[in-house]
Amino acid sequence: MSERGNRPLDLLEASVGTEVTVHLKGGEVYEGLLAGYDQHMNLVVEEGEDTTIIRGDNVVSIRP
Amino acid sequence: MSERGNRPLDLLEASVGTEVTVHLKGGEVYEGLLAGYDQHMNLVVEEGEDTTIIRGDNVVSIRP
Amino acid sequence: MSERGNRPLDLLEASVGTEVTVHLKGGEVYEGLLAGYDQHMNLVVEEGEDTTIIRGDNVVSIRP
Amino acid sequence: MSERGNRPLDLLEASVGTEVTVHLKGGEVYEGLLAGYDQHMNLVVEEGEDTTIIRGDNVVSIRP
Amino acid sequence: MSERGNRPLDLLEASVGTEVTVHLKGGEVYEGLLAGYDQHMNLVVEEGEDTTIIRGDNVVSIRP
Amino acid sequence: MSERGNRPLDLLEASVGTEVTVHLKGGEVYEGLLAGYDQHMNLVVEEGEDTTIIRGDNVVSIRP
Amino acid sequence: MSERGNRPLDLLEASVGTEVTVHLKGGEVYEGLLAGYDQHMNLVVEEGEDTTIIRGDNVVSIRP
Repeated sequence: MSERGNRPLDLLEASVGTEVTVHLKGGEVYEGLLAGYDQHMNLVVEEGEDTTIIRGDNVVSIRP
Repeated sequence: MSERGNRPLDLLEASVGTEVTVHLKGGEVYEGLLAGYDQHMNLVVEEGEDTTIIRGDNVVSIRP
Repeated sequence: MSERGNRPLDLLEASVGTEVTVHLKGGEVYEGLLAGYDQHMNLVVEEGEDTTIIRGDNVVSIRP
Repeated sequence: MSERGNRPLDLLEASVGTEVTVHLKGGEVYEGLLAGYDQHMNLVVEEGEDTTIIRGDNVVSIRP
Repeated sequence: MSERGNRPLDLLEASVGTEVTVHLKGGEVYEGLLAGYDQHMNLVVEEGEDTTIIRGDNVVSIRP
Repeated sequence: MSERGNRPLDLLEASVGTEVTVHLKGGEVYEGLLAGYDQHMNLVVEEGEDTTIIRGDNVVSIRP
Repeated sequence: MSERGNRPLDLLEASVGTEVTVHLKGGEVYEGLLAGYDQHMNLVVEEGEDTTIIRGDNVVSIRP
């Protein structure tokens, strides 16, 4: 499969080190620096002093 | 398996760079340019200035 | 495994290009031409001018 | 693993061409001829004139 | 991994042909003879005249 | 991946033959002897005379 | 895929032996020492005298 355009994980890769807004299925919203991710969309988000690991299956959307 | 007709991911591929309407399980609707996708139906949608990565398991339908 | 009878995906294959009624878990109903499918039961349904890609995990039933 | 007794898919195989009652997670009940199945418990059920493909992940039980 | 004790599927194997009580996620309870199973915990339960195939992902517990 | 510390399944292995408290997603609580488990966290719990096989996907937590 | 930054499981690895706050989908919160984990995000958390094995699919977030 030749996937044109910006693949979702490529955009996630490009967003490491920048501010993102993450919406979860439970309604929670995280706004902070994207410090890391993996192919399951597990995320590491830094909000000021707080670092949070989010399990990917909770993620609805990520806005770089 | 010989899948006749337009396979869903082929249609998604053909829709990159065009306007789409995406409905999510939580009721959210995104209308914008489909900037990218992958085989899980993870999507990148651009609404004006805003770019959103949507995790595929939230997607109900995509209307090109 | 020797699966007798009409296997579900074979019937889906035979239904491409014909009218189908699709029920989704969220209660939505799509009636239109089955334009394509894949082994996950991702579907492409055409209702008049509108074409919709449906992610297979939302599907309850398809009535050819 | 040596599975004794009647394995579920073997019984399903033996039920092709006979009347079955299918209960789905959403509460729907289908009563008709089992016309086909696959290893995901995707089913084809014929009720009189109507043929329905049921996606296996909706199935609770099948009573031959 | 060396799993000590009675592994769940071994106990299920040993229970074929005996009476079991099965609780499902939807609250249904089946009491009958365990006629068969597979590694997904798909089950065949016989209650008097009635035989039921239960899709494993609905199962909460099985009490031999 | 070098996983430091006590891996969850190693602790489960070490708990076979001892008393555990198991919480399920549906709110049920089992207190008894852990008689067996497998890598899906399917469990066998003995409460006095009663032995129960629990399907792993229902498990929230296990307290040795 | 070259994943930049701190991958979620690397951060989890680095957090073994330190205090973490774990939020589950059911609303439960665990605060204690992270004693172990695996790649499914199954966790072992020690709160004072109590040790708990948490099945990974219940986890929303882990805050080191």
